Amino acid sequence: MAGIRRQLKLGAFLYPTGHHIAAWRHPLTQADAGSNFAHYVGLAQIAEAAKFDLIFLADGAGTRGDDTEALHRTAQRYVAQFEPITLLSALAAVTKNIGFVATASTSFNEPYHIARKFASLDHISGGRAGWNLVTSSSDHEAHNFGRDEHYAHAERYERAEEFADVVLGLWDTWEEDAFPRNKQSGIYYDPQKQHILNHKGKHFKVRGPLNVARAPQGHPVLVQAGSSEPGRELAARTAEVVFTAHQTIEDARAFYADLKGRLAKYGRDHDDLKIMPGIFPVVGRTREEAQRKFAELQDLVHPVVGLSMLNGMSGGVDLSQYPLDGPIPDLPETNGSKSRQKLLLDLARRENLTIRELYLRIAGARGHWQIVGTPIDIADQMEEWFRREAADGFNVMPPQLPTGLYDFVEHVLPELRRRGLFRNDYEGSTLRENLGLKVPLHPARHAVAAE
Amino acid sequence: MAGIRRQLKLGAFLYPTGHHIAAWRHPLTQADAGSNFAHYVGLAQIAEAAKFDLIFLADGAGTRGDDTEALHRTAQRYVAQFEPITLLSALAAVTKNIGFVATASTSFNEPYHIARKFASLDHISGGRAGWNLVTSSSDHEAHNFGRDEHYAHAERYERAEEFADVVLGLWDTWEEDAFPRNKQSGIYYDPQKQHILNHKGKHFKVRGPLNVARAPQGHPVLVQAGSSEPGRELAARTAEVVFTAHQTIEDARAFYADLKGRLAKYGRDHDDLKIMPGIFPVVGRTREEAQRKFAELQDLVHPVVGLSMLNGMSGGVDLSQYPLDGPIPDLPETNGSKSRQKLLLDLARRENLTIRELYLRIAGARGHWQIVGTPIDIADQMEEWFRREAADGFNVMPPQLPTGLYDFVEHVLPELRRRGLFRNDYEGSTLRENLGLKVPLHPARHAVAAE
Repeated sequence: MAGIRRQLKLGAFLYPTGHHIAAWRHPLTQADAGSNFAHYVGLAQIAEAAKFDLIFLADGAGTRGDDTEALHRTAQRYVAQFEPITLLSALAAVTKNIGFVATASTSFNEPYHIARKFASLDHISGGRAGWNLVTSSSDHEAHNFGRDEHYAHAERYERAEEFADVVLGLWDTWEEDAFPRNKQSGIYYDPQKQHILNHKGKHFKVRGPLNVARAPQGHPVLVQAGSSEPGRELAARTAEVVFTAHQTIEDARAFYADLKGRLAKYGRDHDDLKIMPGIFPVVGRTREEAQRKFAELQDLVHPVVGLSMLNGMSGGVDLSQYPLDGPIPDLPETNGSKSRQKLLLDLARRENLTIRELYLRIAGARGHWQIVGTPIDIADQMEEWFRREAADGFNVMPPQLPTGLYDFVEHVLPELRRRGLFRNDYEGSTLRENLGLKVPLHPARHAVAAE
Repeated sequence: MAGIRRQLKLGAFLYPTGHHIAAWRHPLTQADAGSNFAHYVGLAQIAEAAKFDLIFLADGAGTRGDDTEALHRTAQRYVAQFEPITLLSALAAVTKNIGFVATASTSFNEPYHIARKFASLDHISGGRAGWNLVTSSSDHEAHNFGRDEHYAHAERYERAEEFADVVLGLWDTWEEDAFPRNKQSGIYYDPQKQHILNHKGKHFKVRGPLNVARAPQGHPVLVQAGSSEPGRELAARTAEVVFTAHQTIEDARAFYADLKGRLAKYGRDHDDLKIMPGIFPVVGRTREEAQRKFAELQDLVHPVVGLSMLNGMSGGVDLSQYPLDGPIPDLPETNGSKSRQKLLLDLARRENLTIRELYLRIAGARGHWQIVGTPIDIADQMEEWFRREAADGFNVMPPQLPTGLYDFVEHVLPELRRRGLFRNDYEGSTLRENLGLKVPLHPARHAVAAE
């Protein structure tokens, strides 16, 4: 049964209090979510009972921004929340099937630590770990790691390319059956099946081997989110899941075709990489109820927070000097996230939005696809994106937590299941099995197979 | 009741297959312990049921050594095992009271990551986290982080001093009640209770604030193990638990008096720092049974492994060129662990050991205190060390796992309890409460209190 019909892959993207910028102020939201472990245990168990493929956590190694007037009114911007790997490792101990994708930046980490922590998480979880590789585009993070500013865009990606290669190389330092652990002969590991890395590159010099046995999944699943040109090329070469942001099906289809089209030159198949755009669903039994629920959240956005959020997303330009109810001014090219800036400007121009309208427009989904409607409205659009090759699945971004996750699970999932678009039970016990991704064999096995 | 009578503090120091170098070959040992999460869940639950204060994990960010002939016959030397923070975070989710101390080196880490991960673990566990601060003295680790050799002893400690200050400073960037999270007013945090660090030192430049709220314990418990002169001074200034290695009560008493004597100049009390030597107990119902159990393990030591282990501990000098049954040659001063070298040489000279006898002598406890005897023998000596101020407690190093932990819990703990030396139940739910350590108030509170 499983695997015959193509079905949606679904991630639960858990921002502590939910994705809407004002979610924490809602009466039903867990305001202390960023340091409330029981809150996350509850969410993980609901997402697993609902058969989500994975839980996805974003990350910033530092608070993003120093505009205290806005920051002290928000639960977002990484002001105070769990570090993702520690959180997901703890959640792995109280779940059985759901996968765990933690974001970790290549800008301010060492590849040995990252390779080791994700391999460890893969063993702890029995093959349910994934790494969302990002580059950091925030000076605020750089300031916590001895630098005055973050790396320029090109250098950031050059470093990320090499970082990914080192991590993948470290994951391949042990073959699958490298550890006979034979008590009689006293042979713990087979030296022929250990491979020293000896990487010497421009940014990193790493000998290896990794001091964790080969991961149950071969490699933890490699996830990426960059959609700039170097980001797409890195994804086409190495990523297995791409989390992306699109406002329209046309944009999503173009991205999908472009990225899938780049796979062949790296010897990869169409299904070796799953594209999962973000979706911010506000669910109501009627459209009116959905609009009312959304308005409740929008009404809680403090103007200082909305404006600051927009500033952060528009490359550091201070928009407060322009009239709130006037048009978006021209923005200079930034060293930050180019794709995010373009997406925002396109949105504002397309819909002819004022500054105020734009910040309210992105207060929920932060540039991701936002649908406010009934379960049927939402399922219709998800189905259309899926069937028309705009998406292999979605990273679901609940507006508020925990209730936004309940709404999706209780109302939208049954509709997707009725249409045969989502699983009734897990296909396997590893993240790869559920995502339908191959287990990467050790390169030495390929060599044997080719003989 | 609790707190009136001074009692032993006990750690369970869990090396994957146990501390004896050949433990993994024993028929009852879990040979795949380094990647068997269920094994650790079982150990943690037994240690918690037995009311141990904490579980302690050592660490190396890389395999120690490249002598494949020896390495491929051992489950130690960090060949392949869980990364400690991911492992302890997962164990926190399936326990309620026991503390968790993970080792992390200041040599190849960033203080922001370390401060953040331990603060996160403290929140996840409800106040049960501790950080064992070590410096790395292995070139093999250095090779995984872009360096040709590890830092020289003095520089290592200079870096460690500054690293500790940055981490402590980051843990103090939020006051206890910094997060009102007031939904009506929209105030998530109180900017007056956030403190930017802005550290600019010789080794690190870190702005902060930390993006995790103040830890439930104020600070996770700070543990250290260095016993060189700069190691003692750093411990006297900052450590709350010191894990140490002594072969004789005289050495242990001298160390205890010296370290406790250094506290006053930093404004600290005698009980603000707990000294917990390692103890490697081989338990038998009779002395003969204990000796037989020990001999079973000793017989499993392959000479190549024993010799290599000694080489590693004697500062890299290749002892295989000397006669196995002859005396230990003079060893040059090393850039590695000076205190460990001295301890080994003193032991060999005191007991007039050959090279072979020395490696068998340390094959179990690796320089720590080893007792082979009945529960009463072991309790007698622990009591003597405790009453004569050689120890505030012990870090128990089971020879093999899981059975070595069972032996101690089933036979030695009842004897300690009969003597009133160990708790019947936890005093509290945090590691600090159980260790009898003060919760550090935020410096701003001290300022208020002093007004």
